Amino acid sequence: MYPMSFLFFYFLFKKKYYFYNIFINRNMNILNGILTRRSIRKYTNDMIPQEKAEEIIKYGMYAPSARNCQPWHFILLNNKEVFLKIQEFQPHTKMLEYAQWGIVVCGDDQLAHTPEYWPVDCAAATENILLAAHGMGYGAVWLGIYPRPERVSAMKDLLGLPPHVHAFSIISVGCPDQQLPQPERFVPERIHLNNW
Amino acid sequence: MYPMSFLFFYFLFKKKYYFYNIFINRNMNILNGILTRRSIRKYTNDMIPQEKAEEIIKYGMYAPSARNCQPWHFILLNNKEVFLKIQEFQPHTKMLEYAQWGIVVCGDDQLAHTPEYWPVDCAAATENILLAAHGMGYGAVWLGIYPRPERVSAMKDLLGLPPHVHAFSIISVGCPDQQLPQPERFVPERIHLNNW
Repeated sequence: MYPMSFLFFYFLFKKKYYFYNIFINRNMNILNGILTRRSIRKYTNDMIPQEKAEEIIKYGMYAPSARNCQPWHFILLNNKEVFLKIQEFQPHTKMLEYAQWGIVVCGDDQLAHTPEYWPVDCAAATENILLAAHGMGYGAVWLGIYPRPERVSAMKDLLGLPPHVHAFSIISVGCPDQQLPQPERFVPERIHLNNW
Repeated sequence: MYPMSFLFFYFLFKKKYYFYNIFINRNMNILNGILTRRSIRKYTNDMIPQEKAEEIIKYGMYAPSARNCQPWHFILLNNKEVFLKIQEFQPHTKMLEYAQWGIVVCGDDQLAHTPEYWPVDCAAATENILLAAHGMGYGAVWLGIYPRPERVSAMKDLLGLPPHVHAFSIISVGCPDQQLPQPERFVPERIHLNNW
């Protein structure tokens, strides 16, 4: 029995966040979740199956959008060569090499209420995805494409997007290999009553 | 004893969502919360104290922002005259008359990473506020100001915002007097793998 229990604890230690993820985070309270979500850039080698990545995207599809147009597409990335090419025009994406998935949120001129609205709608979808990844026990970080026209254009070429579809953001997703404390971000002075 | 229990059930019935709000929603799971959040435009007369409105705003302040600049301000509105004036340039805001609070999310050119980024950051804050209101048992709806320049300009005049501060959205908040079912918004065809 002794070697078996040693193996068990070894497994527990190696997968230190695994049980935390499964048993704690799946019942994460929405308010605590909003407060404890952080940008996670270090990941373990643990796999995230494609259906879980698609579940994360599902939560993005539940974001509000202007006139409920839902003008979004999502490109799931797990090709390391694509990740390396992205680094050429978005230098803050090195963690993608260790991520299980990249999720590119794209906006569609033809689906949006008017073409000016897709960035707003895609930002809400991106935030839903970040919160959902956190709630599912994964770690994620928002990597900006829009509003930089050179990055939007480079992503369009790299992924072969049609002219009316524009990359808005990339979300890097993996199993977290870091735990960051809840910060203090409440600044009461930024709240005004009835006028400036 | 009988009249007392009648009163108790009468109270329960009148405040049909009150106990639901307090006991169920405060423990809302983050994933269910994302799926069940809807735009709520009908409100009861129940009060929402100012500290609760400020708590909702706190969750907005925990949104991610470009370079973590947190380039936002929040104007809490509860002045019915202001609500009527907003209707003159944003016609889809009639529910504000019955809301307990309006929360105007504003972006600040001088605080943002670059001035192009505040709309993206404010959209994430707006989505956090909508989810937090839902998680606290309130009902809320996103009323668009940005990207319409005439609305941004009219809000600047109405609220006396400085030149570098721009209204992005108004969130109407009240105690819900309607319950909307969870919609089906998952569209698998919108998910692509590694390229379009």
